[in-house]
Amino acid sequence: MEDAFSIWFLIGAALVFFMQAGFAMVETGFTRAKNAGNIIMKNLMDFCIGTVMFMVLGAGLMLGEDALFGLVGIPNMDIFANFATYDWSNFVFNLVFCATAATIVSGAMAERTKFLSYCIYSGVISLIIYPIEAHWIWGGGWLSKLGYIDYAGSSAIHMVGGIAALIGAAMLGPRIGKYIKDASGKVVKVNAIQGHSIPLGALGCFILWFGWYGFNGAAAKSVSELAQILTTTTIAPAVATVVCMIYTWLKNGKPDVSMCLNASLAGLVGVTAGCANVDAIGATIIGVVSGLLVVWVVNLLDLKLHVDDPVGAVAVHCANGIWGTIAAGLLSTSSASAGVDGPIYALIHGTSFGAGMKVLGIQFLGVICIAAWTVVTIYITFKVIDKTVGLRVSKEEEIKGLDSTEHGLPSAYADFVYAVENIDYADAVAVTGDVPVAEAVEVKAVPTFEKPAKDGVKFTKVEIICKERMLETLKNAMTNIGITGMTVSHVMGCGVQKGRPEYYRGVAVEPTLLPKIQVDIVVSKVPVREVIETAKKVLYTGHIGDGKIFVYDVENVVKVRTGEEGYDALQDEE
Amino acid sequence: MEDAFSIWFLIGAALVFFMQAGFAMVETGFTRAKNAGNIIMKNLMDFCIGTVMFMVLGAGLMLGEDALFGLVGIPNMDIFANFATYDWSNFVFNLVFCATAATIVSGAMAERTKFLSYCIYSGVISLIIYPIEAHWIWGGGWLSKLGYIDYAGSSAIHMVGGIAALIGAAMLGPRIGKYIKDASGKVVKVNAIQGHSIPLGALGCFILWFGWYGFNGAAAKSVSELAQILTTTTIAPAVATVVCMIYTWLKNGKPDVSMCLNASLAGLVGVTAGCANVDAIGATIIGVVSGLLVVWVVNLLDLKLHVDDPVGAVAVHCANGIWGTIAAGLLSTSSASAGVDGPIYALIHGTSFGAGMKVLGIQFLGVICIAAWTVVTIYITFKVIDKTVGLRVSKEEEIKGLDSTEHGLPSAYADFVYAVENIDYADAVAVTGDVPVAEAVEVKAVPTFEKPAKDGVKFTKVEIICKERMLETLKNAMTNIGITGMTVSHVMGCGVQKGRPEYYRGVAVEPTLLPKIQVDIVVSKVPVREVIETAKKVLYTGHIGDGKIFVYDVENVVKVRTGEEGYDALQDEE
Amino acid sequence: MEDAFSIWFLIGAALVFFMQAGFAMVETGFTRAKNAGNIIMKNLMDFCIGTVMFMVLGAGLMLGEDALFGLVGIPNMDIFANFATYDWSNFVFNLVFCATAATIVSGAMAERTKFLSYCIYSGVISLIIYPIEAHWIWGGGWLSKLGYIDYAGSSAIHMVGGIAALIGAAMLGPRIGKYIKDASGKVVKVNAIQGHSIPLGALGCFILWFGWYGFNGAAAKSVSELAQILTTTTIAPAVATVVCMIYTWLKNGKPDVSMCLNASLAGLVGVTAGCANVDAIGATIIGVVSGLLVVWVVNLLDLKLHVDDPVGAVAVHCANGIWGTIAAGLLSTSSASAGVDGPIYALIHGTSFGAGMKVLGIQFLGVICIAAWTVVTIYITFKVIDKTVGLRVSKEEEIKGLDSTEHGLPSAYADFVYAVENIDYADAVAVTGDVPVAEAVEVKAVPTFEKPAKDGVKFTKVEIICKERMLETLKNAMTNIGITGMTVSHVMGCGVQKGRPEYYRGVAVEPTLLPKIQVDIVVSKVPVREVIETAKKVLYTGHIGDGKIFVYDVENVVKVRTGEEGYDALQDEE
Repeated sequence: MEDAFSIWFLIGAALVFFMQAGFAMVETGFTRAKNAGNIIMKNLMDFCIGTVMFMVLGAGLMLGEDALFGLVGIPNMDIFANFATYDWSNFVFNLVFCATAATIVSGAMAERTKFLSYCIYSGVISLIIYPIEAHWIWGGGWLSKLGYIDYAGSSAIHMVGGIAALIGAAMLGPRIGKYIKDASGKVVKVNAIQGHSIPLGALGCFILWFGWYGFNGAAAKSVSELAQILTTTTIAPAVATVVCMIYTWLKNGKPDVSMCLNASLAGLVGVTAGCANVDAIGATIIGVVSGLLVVWVVNLLDLKLHVDDPVGAVAVHCANGIWGTIAAGLLSTSSASAGVDGPIYALIHGTSFGAGMKVLGIQFLGVICIAAWTVVTIYITFKVIDKTVGLRVSKEEEIKGLDSTEHGLPSAYADFVYAVENIDYADAVAVTGDVPVAEAVEVKAVPTFEKPAKDGVKFTKVEIICKERMLETLKNAMTNIGITGMTVSHVMGCGVQKGRPEYYRGVAVEPTLLPKIQVDIVVSKVPVREVIETAKKVLYTGHIGDGKIFVYDVENVVKVRTGEEGYDALQDEE
Repeated sequence: MEDAFSIWFLIGAALVFFMQAGFAMVETGFTRAKNAGNIIMKNLMDFCIGTVMFMVLGAGLMLGEDALFGLVGIPNMDIFANFATYDWSNFVFNLVFCATAATIVSGAMAERTKFLSYCIYSGVISLIIYPIEAHWIWGGGWLSKLGYIDYAGSSAIHMVGGIAALIGAAMLGPRIGKYIKDASGKVVKVNAIQGHSIPLGALGCFILWFGWYGFNGAAAKSVSELAQILTTTTIAPAVATVVCMIYTWLKNGKPDVSMCLNASLAGLVGVTAGCANVDAIGATIIGVVSGLLVVWVVNLLDLKLHVDDPVGAVAVHCANGIWGTIAAGLLSTSSASAGVDGPIYALIHGTSFGAGMKVLGIQFLGVICIAAWTVVTIYITFKVIDKTVGLRVSKEEEIKGLDSTEHGLPSAYADFVYAVENIDYADAVAVTGDVPVAEAVEVKAVPTFEKPAKDGVKFTKVEIICKERMLETLKNAMTNIGITGMTVSHVMGCGVQKGRPEYYRGVAVEPTLLPKIQVDIVVSKVPVREVIETAKKVLYTGHIGDGKIFVYDVENVVKVRTGEEGYDALQDEE
Repeated sequence: MEDAFSIWFLIGAALVFFMQAGFAMVETGFTRAKNAGNIIMKNLMDFCIGTVMFMVLGAGLMLGEDALFGLVGIPNMDIFANFATYDWSNFVFNLVFCATAATIVSGAMAERTKFLSYCIYSGVISLIIYPIEAHWIWGGGWLSKLGYIDYAGSSAIHMVGGIAALIGAAMLGPRIGKYIKDASGKVVKVNAIQGHSIPLGALGCFILWFGWYGFNGAAAKSVSELAQILTTTTIAPAVATVVCMIYTWLKNGKPDVSMCLNASLAGLVGVTAGCANVDAIGATIIGVVSGLLVVWVVNLLDLKLHVDDPVGAVAVHCANGIWGTIAAGLLSTSSASAGVDGPIYALIHGTSFGAGMKVLGIQFLGVICIAAWTVVTIYITFKVIDKTVGLRVSKEEEIKGLDSTEHGLPSAYADFVYAVENIDYADAVAVTGDVPVAEAVEVKAVPTFEKPAKDGVKFTKVEIICKERMLETLKNAMTNIGITGMTVSHVMGCGVQKGRPEYYRGVAVEPTLLPKIQVDIVVSKVPVREVIETAKKVLYTGHIGDGKIFVYDVENVVKVRTGEEGYDALQDEE
């Protein structure tokens, strides 16, 4: 029945939309917490900007009447003028596919790309780059006329997005701290910059896999075709993941979680072109290669080419997009719903080997032409952006994190900010410059005590342990009596003060350690007694847990910026 | 084919159910970690309680035979008595819509509402309030007979939920610390209380958007209608998000992440009433207004009206629900599948302007009547709850967090509890009362040293650095020798002890800093040597990393609660 | 229309696949952060390994031509040889069901099972155990011929998975620290080990519930049947959750969040067998029992049987799988689409009570036979694994966490690692052995000061407060001047240095406390002045915020491992 498949076509489009959530979670999870809001924002905006661009022009270029010998569609005003008769099913479906191509890039360029530049890139790919090559394949263009096989877009979507990712990541350069170079510029060390949430990344992968059933299956026109597509779309990623697990286990001694998650996506990308053209064996072969290819290309980029792709987008989408498109020709079989015999099945089935080789040849032709188009247009796009608004944020912005600097978002994890503002070892090294750290700190001469620390002035540290919620009050009180600096840390107080028991799944949770803050104040001019009495005043409630104050002698104080020592170091008049 | 659309209708209902996950994630992500379990629980229970209530009575009031001139349906016993013939498709579909209306409120009333009160509210809205007004629109009631346009519920669901959210949030009052008032009660400062997980919030938005294709599209009866609905349901939120991004960028200098996520939802709410009545241009206009409106109303509530709506529910659902319903009349076009010409398209198409204005007039009438019904019934509901069980938790409960106080859940993020129990600056200020902090701490006179600190008694701090897992053992051992207080903090030890290398995506991760704990014990009566020897005994394993102990002199100790100093301050006999 | 239901069948399969994401999130959220990557990996791999196994043999055993009097299907080569004609719809559908049965186990065996052993188990259940019993019910086997009712798998999937979970968890033994035993081996204390992310766990539950509409509904063959299934699949979990909320509220004084999430799943499992056989009242009864049963069985296992099931898989899947299968017979009604009158409705409808009792009897027979098959085969499987590769990781691996030890993943939450490496109280107690802690630390005699601490050598603590990103540089510099140990902690500096204002939803966020690190170095041999000057050199930039250095006198130093004190304790030459 026509209607049932037409409805499924639109449900499939909704599933492909949901893949945006998958991309957002994968890319967020595999990058650092300080850029989580920025990654989210990029994934949101590439869809939204892409929608506007695709509506304005992209849909016309892709779906309009074929012109220039199959090179481009002719845009018309039907979207705005003929609402009642325009083919909106096709519009929605191709829009969400277009957005998928656009969003692949954000992962590879994560954590260092200017947000404005990413917005411009999103617009350009959705406005022109994707629509034109997609017209060739799915809009009635020249490749479709040749019988090019790319059922759901290994080349049209993934290779294109993957090439853009590769060029973008290479042009941007690596994240600060990713590669340590010696004086000659040779990379002497590759640092791992871990993603901040494997569970969110994994959730993203599951969402993508789920959405992929719509991505590959939406265009099916019979139940058996749909069932075959769902089968190949399940076998390839499953096999790829198993192969990757075994391979990383053998290679590193342990099965690698994040690589296996990448392998699932690699298998999905690999089977996308041929999902309706290959059989179960073909899907298995695609999966085996995808599972290995993704590891090789991740390592090739990271360890050899030194192109910094935080989420593995190039390995997943570009490498497997190419492999999948070639494999669709190589392994195509007439047993599959949409398949013709490629060279291998021509031999097996005894059909024309020449025709089979032609199938494969057209695949190569398509890959080369689409890749060439993408390389040229994306290179120009990024180059123009780089020369105008600039592609990359400043070093300071990158180290501080893009959430804060690009969006004014102090942290995407406000209640955990204390933990998030973690030490960024690699960053710190890089910021000191390319000079190896050891040299930079060599001490030339130990200076003499020009100004004795204990010049008759006594320094005292007052250490106050109190409830966390009193901090603001205490801070204000101390400011009022002239204290200009203090150090605050979270500690756990363990006294006789006991909390009430709480229950987790019916079992009591022991609350013996209670969160407190420790405020350290070193004073010289302000009398110690005044600090103590002020603290007592503001902290006193008469209830258990009001806190304790400890007093220590301090031998010396140094202020690094001014070099002042002793009394002067404590007088903050900046 | 009838069956295909009937199945899609039920798939759409499942998608609307999935929106509950979206609401839960948005509301959790945009509020604080200490209330995450409570928010989850509210979202879960409003659906479950709502299901019971809708089954018992709501479905009857909404879908029963029309009575009282279209004001209400007559409940009957078919749900329980005629299982085989009852229209369960309609039941399931309307149930999940009802639950959506109910769940909107939880975000606006988050972080301070009594859980019991929320349960009661959920029951009332699902039992009576929603079913009756929904009967007017979708149950064959008086508005449906007038030709009122609200295809998927901008008014029936979102405005109703949004009004309940507004009244609830206003009646509750703001969260502690949100607004700082001077002595006269005037708000002198508005504090930002950040959400604790933007990624979870964003995931929720993507899930909502995905589910919205079911929400708006489920009732479609032809493929072209469904395609048009998916188109308008994509264009409006995309445009709203782009407009919001540009507007916040121009206004604040940076594009705002969480506001853009709100804008996507605003666009979706805005297009809900007219999704099958407007064309691509209409959807674009709806999106432009929604994208601005959401920012204005968030700021209006926050900065002017001082109604504290943590997640922006009023701006998203109430404001855009109203706008969407009016827009559906204003921009309705006969080109759209379910559309008639509203005033604008009447002029464009040359059809009757009077008829067009009547369409718009009925929209206003519907909005006013539904709003009036909701205001009155919700106000009574909340007022009765407030006067009986109470609407709001106590100050102490609110500051401690609702997870712990309402559900006995120590933390929704157990392994991160240390970080979660963060300082709540705003809370602390507020708890000290409305008196400005500065006054409260003014020191009247510096007291003399009534009791000298060093009264011949030596105080010593023993600082023990050891492995985290030894804490419990060490704590018990110290308690056994008479130590009654200690301060524990997480530190990182950096010694010659090296960990084994680990690999992330094939690259070695440097483990040079190892997590340790630092336990500070100040002693006077208990001999220092005994503390040291006890620590050595329990910490000793003979392996690298057993830890170090440092000993410091302490000049004085003060116990805040009792004012005791010196020796007495260390004798905890509470 | 045939096609519409055939497409829905495959959409349903995709929804069931999505349940893998739900399981992964539930199990991750309800366990500890240190094992999050491992849980994810298990959920990913059981699906992928299961796919390979089901393809190779499982599908044949389940779906092949019936043989041996209905005990098993005969595998054939159609999957590989007859791609064009094989029933791939059935394959995909049954594959995702098989994977659901397999994945249930991972939660119950979480946090202590060897990854390799879990992979082997996954293979065996998908290859043989599940396919054979599923053949009995759904593959044309003997139970299907008897009229056994298990529409979507309360017994075939959930009871089987739940029994495997129970046997696996029991054979593994509890997690370290879960149960504290006295000398005689009697459990004297049950510790709660909290899950690390209730929001992720809740998201998983919502995803499961959403997917369950496909799980229960996919096989529907008419719109009214599908609508009835969606109705019962909504009522049962909703009622179960409400009942559980009320029960835990009455029992513990507070409604339990994680138990209610379990109750939703319990209700879904309970209604799975009878979803097309019971009416609204039947679904309500199933829900009431499920909501209580899940609490009882969780407590029975935890508090009485001392079987440690971290996520409640046995209570949810095994107990409710059995209950659901019996309930399907007991409450089956001819009013429901697929129902015949069980004993109760036979009385109500006046049909044959004997026939009704036979329906119930066959349910008992099925449950017993399937349970017997599962118990025997799973017991053998786990026993063989245990005797060969071993079922459980070592104590050290378990305490350190499986992410690190099984996958080389330092943390699934890299930016939060500091917080994640939290104290594991329970672990610490357990590792000290079964001897109660108090005894172990009893101090026999306070030793005399054999070697005076202040043997003419001065110890000094240099405390450096600086920017976090300077840590690596500072650390290297200190190493270069001979410092071999230091303690690093995160603190918050509160000086006159102010950050730029940032905005959250249009409201300024106050940045008065800035994250800093505090590095404590105790020196004796290395001159204090050299430490200070080196620190000044590397920290100096001339900008506000360069940091401060404080100097303190130290009375003594002890190195625990060697017992060295004073000067020697600082000479780390390990």
